[in-house]
Amino acid sequence: MIKLPVKILDIRSVDPTVMISHQTASRLKFKHTAVVMVRHEVSGKSFSATPVVTEGIVENNVVGISAPDAEWLNVRDGDEVLLANRRTPASLDLLKQKMKGKAWTQNDVYAIVNDISKRNYINLEIGEFVLTSEFQGFSEEEMTAFAVSMAEQGTQFDFQEKTFDKHSIGGVPGNKVSLVIVPTIASAGLLIPKTSSRAITSPSGTADSMEVLAEVEFSPDEVSEIAPRTRGMIVHNEPLKLSPMDGIVAKVKKFLDVDPQDQMLSAIISTKIAMGIKNLVIDIPTGKYTKMQTTEEAMNFAHRLVGLCHRVGINVEAAMTLGDTPIGTNIGPALEAKEALEILEGKVKNTAYTKSLELAGTLLEMGGVASINRGSEVARELIESGKALKKFKEIIEAQGGDPNITSNDINVGEYTYTICASQDGYVRSISNRGTKLICAAAGAPSSKESGIVLHTRIGAYVKEGDPLFTIYSNSDAKLSSAIQVATNYMAVKISGMIINRVKSEKKI
Amino acid sequence: MIKLPVKILDIRSVDPTVMISHQTASRLKFKHTAVVMVRHEVSGKSFSATPVVTEGIVENNVVGISAPDAEWLNVRDGDEVLLANRRTPASLDLLKQKMKGKAWTQNDVYAIVNDISKRNYINLEIGEFVLTSEFQGFSEEEMTAFAVSMAEQGTQFDFQEKTFDKHSIGGVPGNKVSLVIVPTIASAGLLIPKTSSRAITSPSGTADSMEVLAEVEFSPDEVSEIAPRTRGMIVHNEPLKLSPMDGIVAKVKKFLDVDPQDQMLSAIISTKIAMGIKNLVIDIPTGKYTKMQTTEEAMNFAHRLVGLCHRVGINVEAAMTLGDTPIGTNIGPALEAKEALEILEGKVKNTAYTKSLELAGTLLEMGGVASINRGSEVARELIESGKALKKFKEIIEAQGGDPNITSNDINVGEYTYTICASQDGYVRSISNRGTKLICAAAGAPSSKESGIVLHTRIGAYVKEGDPLFTIYSNSDAKLSSAIQVATNYMAVKISGMIINRVKSEKKI
Repeated sequence: MIKLPVKILDIRSVDPTVMISHQTASRLKFKHTAVVMVRHEVSGKSFSATPVVTEGIVENNVVGISAPDAEWLNVRDGDEVLLANRRTPASLDLLKQKMKGKAWTQNDVYAIVNDISKRNYINLEIGEFVLTSEFQGFSEEEMTAFAVSMAEQGTQFDFQEKTFDKHSIGGVPGNKVSLVIVPTIASAGLLIPKTSSRAITSPSGTADSMEVLAEVEFSPDEVSEIAPRTRGMIVHNEPLKLSPMDGIVAKVKKFLDVDPQDQMLSAIISTKIAMGIKNLVIDIPTGKYTKMQTTEEAMNFAHRLVGLCHRVGINVEAAMTLGDTPIGTNIGPALEAKEALEILEGKVKNTAYTKSLELAGTLLEMGGVASINRGSEVARELIESGKALKKFKEIIEAQGGDPNITSNDINVGEYTYTICASQDGYVRSISNRGTKLICAAAGAPSSKESGIVLHTRIGAYVKEGDPLFTIYSNSDAKLSSAIQVATNYMAVKISGMIINRVKSEKKI
Repeated sequence: MIKLPVKILDIRSVDPTVMISHQTASRLKFKHTAVVMVRHEVSGKSFSATPVVTEGIVENNVVGISAPDAEWLNVRDGDEVLLANRRTPASLDLLKQKMKGKAWTQNDVYAIVNDISKRNYINLEIGEFVLTSEFQGFSEEEMTAFAVSMAEQGTQFDFQEKTFDKHSIGGVPGNKVSLVIVPTIASAGLLIPKTSSRAITSPSGTADSMEVLAEVEFSPDEVSEIAPRTRGMIVHNEPLKLSPMDGIVAKVKKFLDVDPQDQMLSAIISTKIAMGIKNLVIDIPTGKYTKMQTTEEAMNFAHRLVGLCHRVGINVEAAMTLGDTPIGTNIGPALEAKEALEILEGKVKNTAYTKSLELAGTLLEMGGVASINRGSEVARELIESGKALKKFKEIIEAQGGDPNITSNDINVGEYTYTICASQDGYVRSISNRGTKLICAAAGAPSSKESGIVLHTRIGAYVKEGDPLFTIYSNSDAKLSSAIQVATNYMAVKISGMIINRVKSEKKI
């Protein structure tokens, strides 16, 4: 163990950087194949990594770290940090035991969560945790322990009143219902401080869509101050630091392309515990290319979820929703914000509208604002009366947006192209995967104006030349590429159509 | 995809380095969270990594890589390489399928082996392969496909005659029997081109011990030339590049601290296929702190091994050997070389001697040099007649060592300390783990002169003050540290002894 001044390097990389010179490494007897730990005594923060031993990049007796890691440690250039060989975390042995079938105790889970949250694991070891979770699953006790301990590692809210929330496990495009549900619930006086993620692989996350209308990055203090006043907010979850472990594990899960269900479930509920949520509706989209391929799988997930919520004191209803096909008509950040406004303005009554009514209705019943089985009717009244729209504008204003915005004011991509039916027939399917791929090619979610608008629905009869969907993009080149994807991948299939591009589909 | 000149950086790190400037990354639209591939068109070699995007370390329009990776690509500073976003290897999807229980076909296995050997996986993905192998195991067909395809990726030998080999799966200290067996078999005229590893966690690998007497690093051409002439060699396996995949996977297995049995088995046999071995004896040490804790486990392993060898056309006998306690008396590179010479010189007849006779005897029977059940008798004659010693000196000379060396000439650590019995009693156990820890503290295997010599054996009656074992080291400080370990960890236990340090044992 030694104290060395830190040199902050302008570096972005997936694996954390701990750069030392050959001379420093040999003086300290550090091998490049060992795991080392960098610790800042003042902040008490540390992280572990395999070092990069080098010549000519950092001076002797200095430790080079990246700017994000400097921020994590809360150090400035030249500050002293401790550098030591990492003591192997005792919890790594618990992974081996679990591999052999031994269940984790509550203390075991706390130790694992603590070690990962404190960055005592390197990425390969986090991968070991993820894959062990995938293969062995969690018992009910393990799930509870994960949810509770993950919440304890991050920011914790206490609104001192009953709180409501709606959460979707995702996977279906066009699912902008939170933008309708939050103002509806808030307009009934219930408190719904909704935290959302940005899109990772999908065309738009709720935070991406909301950001078209208002700011979404708020500190915990700001949320604690604003939400009780407006009764609702839609904010990005990351700046709130609800679960340090979640962000750390998410990066590795992305590379492994694995998302262990029990771990996902614990993580979702941990953020609800951290936000102090007491009443929750969970939307479980079910169908091809969503996270739940079959109703059986979704039912099993729902039961485990309900059991977990029960054990941590959250009143919950799980709703399995149709997920075979996009929700509503618009996909992409701006287009989804536009559609949500159109619903609240009373202009549109499509599947996004009915899904919003159902989920909002459940929450209204839970909150005692509507009697049993009358929830969606009350939700409809709140929307049709304009109360929900008024509330949404209040929320938009409180989050720094323009309260006078209407659905007509939203900018969408200026480059457009409409795909039309190549023959007469009934619309047999509208593919989640196809629409996602087209939106990605068009530039969503990083270009907020890009996406698609569907002009038809499953079961509709179309004639040759009828418009099926329009692609929007902010760039001519991206529009061309999206048209190419749309041509190769038949996102909308019409019965009787000759599927002559099965091979091309696979290439995408 | 773009061509950029390479800048070779003086860097050592576990994860491969691909360093580009922010400007270059943004021009090429590379994200630091994506996987990129660096390819040298001339050599056809490539590797994948997550890039380090930085300012002030590499210039714009240059790609910085480490010296070992430059060697892998066969590029010099300034040579042009291709840099591209990696196409996700199709075989990664096979890992997902296997997780869900789907078996791999022969083609699937070839694809995985090819992708790992060609470094198309990043370390996290290799970890995914390792843990999938650990959890799901391999079917017989999968093991065969792995053994064959791993061999095909590396150097392949063809000696054009019957070949013999002895392999130990390791785990027991003092197992220097290869140094006795190889010259014994070769002195009978059979060809035994033995490849060995260096110690990873043990006090000495066969290659480490042999290196005390001769060179062990040879090229494939040298082995092809020397071995048929001397009938035997003992060389380090790494320079032969028998299985590129093995080395790549080994690094990740070390970090994960996981060694999937079926994958280990396939890897062992792949090197035998690559060496063109047709007759094989496998030593499976069984007992506490070896790789096989129980006879049942060892039996199961042996059966799978025999089945695999049968399928790839290798005549094999698997010998479960006692592994509860060190083999012979000496542990550590030089001390083990010394003991092997003593056995061949006819000076020592201990458990290392009898184990060597048994294993060599089996090979002599397989080779038709001894009739059934007379193998170890023939081996004894070869040793007692001095033929095996003469052959060993020939081999030592052919491998660049001094053929006149005797057991008395071998340098051992000048700092020594003898641990004595603290009371009268029968020796109840001599611990593998304890002796390994003491040897490691004394400096083995990196200091070849360090190790221990046992003066007693299990079941022997000792009196208070009788010597139990002597520690050898080349450094006073390391000797002190080894004495400390020996004091805390009772490597030799005497019946009737009060075991009053159970807690301390766990701490080590």
